[in-house]
Amino acid sequence: MFGLISNITAVPGRRDDLMAILIESVSNMPGCLSYVVAKDLTNEDTVWVTEVWDNKASHDASLSLPSVRKAIAAGKPMIKGFGNQVITTPVGGYGVPVAQAR
Amino acid sequence: MFGLISNITAVPGRRDDLMAILIESVSNMPGCLSYVVAKDLTNEDTVWVTEVWDNKASHDASLSLPSVRKAIAAGKPMIKGFGNQVITTPVGGYGVPVAQAR
Repeated sequence: MFGLISNITAVPGRRDDLMAILIESVSNMPGCLSYVVAKDLTNEDTVWVTEVWDNKASHDASLSLPSVRKAIAAGKPMIKGFGNQVITTPVGGYGVPVAQAR
Repeated sequence: MFGLISNITAVPGRRDDLMAILIESVSNMPGCLSYVVAKDLTNEDTVWVTEVWDNKASHDASLSLPSVRKAIAAGKPMIKGFGNQVITTPVGGYGVPVAQAR
């Protein structure tokens, strides 16, 4: 599996709009096992995105999907900046298909 | 929803053992919607845990479950330290029940 933990800082006042675009875009992405969009509790402009994919190739391919390209274009003006991104190898747990089959 | 993004640094050489304990302990936690255990790609001792719960009370209550108390006791000697923990409010996405029902 391939995982990403990212944070995005929205232009002030646009976090909800940005999150709505992110959430809207993530259905039907082949190989996506989990994609959670969350508000930071201490910074009112920050969004956290935690992703689990079957592999890196599926993630990379998703960036070319029409729905994702549209979301990137729509969300870009609402983004002030990106924080450090953590790349992970998810191993198991609860809420990803491999783990649910245990 | 209530979310946590945490990282734990294992005692050198014990990351796999620690991850196995974490993964083993997370089945049947009431209110847990997602609990992903992942390896950091750049630090061979670091584990990332990303959690989604229906609410904070369910998370807090899980710490008293026999399976979780047992895991904490078993894992403690394998832990070197904890990084900063991020508390979030998950809003939607893919892979949590609310989003899957969309």
